[in-house]
Formats: sequence, structure tokens, C-alpha cells
Amino acid sequence: MRIALIGTGNVGRALARAWAAVGHEVVLGSRDPEARKDVGAELGLPLATVRAAAERADVVVNATPGAESVALLRAAGADVLDGKVLVDIAVGFTMEPHGFVLTHPEESLGEEIQRAFPSARVVKTLSTMDSTAMAPPPELARNSTVFLSGDDADAKAVTRSLLTDLGWPESSQLDLGPIRSARGQEHFAHLFIAVAEALGTHTFTIRVVTEGSGGAEKK
Amino acid sequence: MRIALIGTGNVGRALARAWAAVGHEVVLGSRDPEARKDVGAELGLPLATVRAAAERADVVVNATPGAESVALLRAAGADVLDGKVLVDIAVGFTMEPHGFVLTHPEESLGEEIQRAFPSARVVKTLSTMDSTAMAPPPELARNSTVFLSGDDADAKAVTRSLLTDLGWPESSQLDLGPIRSARGQEHFAHLFIAVAEALGTHTFTIRVVTEGSGGAEKK
Repeated sequence: MRIALIGTGNVGRALARAWAAVGHEVVLGSRDPEARKDVGAELGLPLATVRAAAERADVVVNATPGAESVALLRAAGADVLDGKVLVDIAVGFTMEPHGFVLTHPEESLGEEIQRAFPSARVVKTLSTMDSTAMAPPPELARNSTVFLSGDDADAKAVTRSLLTDLGWPESSQLDLGPIRSARGQEHFAHLFIAVAEALGTHTFTIRVVTEGSGGAEKK
Repeated sequence: MRIALIGTGNVGRALARAWAAVGHEVVLGSRDPEARKDVGAELGLPLATVRAAAERADVVVNATPGAESVALLRAAGADVLDGKVLVDIAVGFTMEPHGFVLTHPEESLGEEIQRAFPSARVVKTLSTMDSTAMAPPPELARNSTVFLSGDDADAKAVTRSLLTDLGWPESSQLDLGPIRSARGQEHFAHLFIAVAEALGTHTFTIRVVTEGSGGAEKK
């Protein structure tokens, strides 16, 4: 698959590396490719503008800072997202003097992106964990839950296969339903931060447990 | 221990039953004891006003609707909470035409209660799950994580022992730190709702998983 990975931060790099390693054709997209040349070189992957990367892709992955994602994608030109699967990993937040604040409280960035680009097929996923857990070792993947939210069944099927390529077995993937449920994934950020502080690491996941399941729920 | 269980809904009833069963002296507190006589009879437990229940208790448990908790506790008289361990289980929300909305977005009811009653020792816990999972069967308890948030170490120790009495092993209890971290537990409500809809049940928990842990983290 041709994947445009928009964003050259920790998330973009981790996913680009993992998907390229299993044979996908990955292009990194950046607002300023010249300034991020080092990332392309580090990963051995082509780097282009957001527009150029998205134009040729089957799947566009939003791994940009969530507070800026919509403006950034809009600047690239909404037309290049038409009909595309748009996998949204971002969580919008700012660090205020009194701490972490979501930019989409009681709503979600995933929904805002779907509204801003109605002909894109948005799937929210992987936003409940740190970049260091997105391509997890088999035991962690088997024992964790990764969530999907989106309105388009085909786009979700594509996203599922991309999750499988990262090491997430089908049995660990939980479809939460429509894009509205992205607010569940994004609001988890508050608990994520508290747990990360308590554990002293960002490398952890959660697992949904029901009686007798002993493991992640499949749906 | 003498426990005042404030609230006669599903949460109050489930916890009252479980703690009474292991020998605690539980009194139910209600705004209108006369109207809730049936609950006292059903559980075989005394029922009193919020004030009368709290007055004689070592531990006061807030299992009232989160959107009304502060007003309700204030009406009972802040003085009866002085120095008491106040275990807060509630999540404040309203159901708007467009869906579930937290009453304390980017903040928490736990923090508001601590501010409103500064001489109470507030511990937030059990607010990431349904009443049907609060006194879990051993396998579910072992495989899940229950969180604690609060500023007072002794109050947390009391709360830990009450969690143990519900069936939660120490290894499943994760101390998130100060009461501020209650916002993590409360914001999880959005993900709780999405998962409940996906699974078709409210009876589930989550577990924090780290590499190699295979289980809940202890701290």
C-alpha cells in the first residue's frame, strides 16, 4: 500500500519505520521537507510536502500535533484527501500553566477532521498509547486493546490490516463504532498522563477485560 | 469500619452489600430516607439522612449522581466531613441531546469535592467501571486495574483496604498520585461509554499493561 505519513515526530517515525519494514511504500509528508531532511535520511524514506505525499497515497496517516492538524491538512489542499482513507492518530492538547488541556473537550479531533474533510474516510486509532507502543512486541500486542472509530466500513478494514501489519492481532482490535466514538479514545489522554506519571514510563497500553475473557475483546 | 454509603442507586447498593458482607458496619445515607425505605429493607441495612449517616462514620462514600454531589454533601453540613476519609466514586455527567457530557471537563469532580470540603480527605476510586464490576469475581479482579487518586496517604491506605475487601488484590490497585489525577479516572467515562456500546455490556474493566507485566501494575 502507498502510505503518506504526515508528521515527522516520534509517532510518524515509528509508524513509517514499521510499515516500511513490512513492505509498504511509505512517503513522509512535512510542512517543511527541507528542514526535516534528516528524518528522511534516518529512515531511508522519501520526504515530500504534505500535498505531494498525500496526492500519490492510498492511505494518509495524520501524525501531526493534534492542535494543528486541521489547519495543516487544509493548507495542503482538501482535494487530495477526496475518497482517501485518512487514519488519524493525533490527540489535540496544549500544555497550560495548570497542566494538560484537550483542544477538543467533550468532542474530538477525529470528528472535526471528518467534518472538515467530508469526502475523506476518517478512522481514528492508536491514539490511546505512546509511539513506543504502537508497533508492540507480540506479548504486549496480544494482551492489549487497540481501538478503531470511523464511519466507513471499508476504511476500517484497511486500517485493521495496517494494524495487523504493526503486530496487532485481530483479537486485540476493538471497533468502537462511528467516528463520534473517537472522543472516547481522545479523552483517555487524561488517564494516560496520570498512569504514565504513576508508572514512570509512557510505554504501556490498556486492555479491555470482561469476565471470563482474560483478554482483549474482539468485535 | 463504620461506612456511610451516600447514595442508594446501583453503585451505593452494590458497595453497601459487598462491604456489609465482609463485616463492615454500613449505614446508607439518602436525601430522602423515607422515600428509599425499600432499599434499606432490600439490603437489610439501616438508612438515615446524609448527615446522620456521615456523622457516625469513619469513612463516607460518595455514590451520588456526580452532577449533584457537591450540593448534596453541602446540604448535609460540611462539618460532618471534617477529617473523614471521603471515598468518591461518582462521575459528573449530563445526557444532552447530542450525547454524554462531563460536568467537569478538563477538571474533575474529585478535585471540586476536595476544594469544597478542604478538611475532608478525598480519595477517588472505582470510577472507571460499572457498579456490576466493583466487587468483581477473583479472575476479573486479578486481571484488571483499579485506580486511586488523592492527596492524603492515610486516606489512601484506608481506601486500599476497602478495595481489598471488595476483592481487589493489592497488585491490581494503582495509585495515580494526587487528587488532580482524578481527572484521568473521570475522563475515562468517554471511553467507557464507547466500549460499553461496542461490547453490548457495562460489565468490563480495563487493565494497564506494560511489556513483560502481563498484568496490572502495582505501585
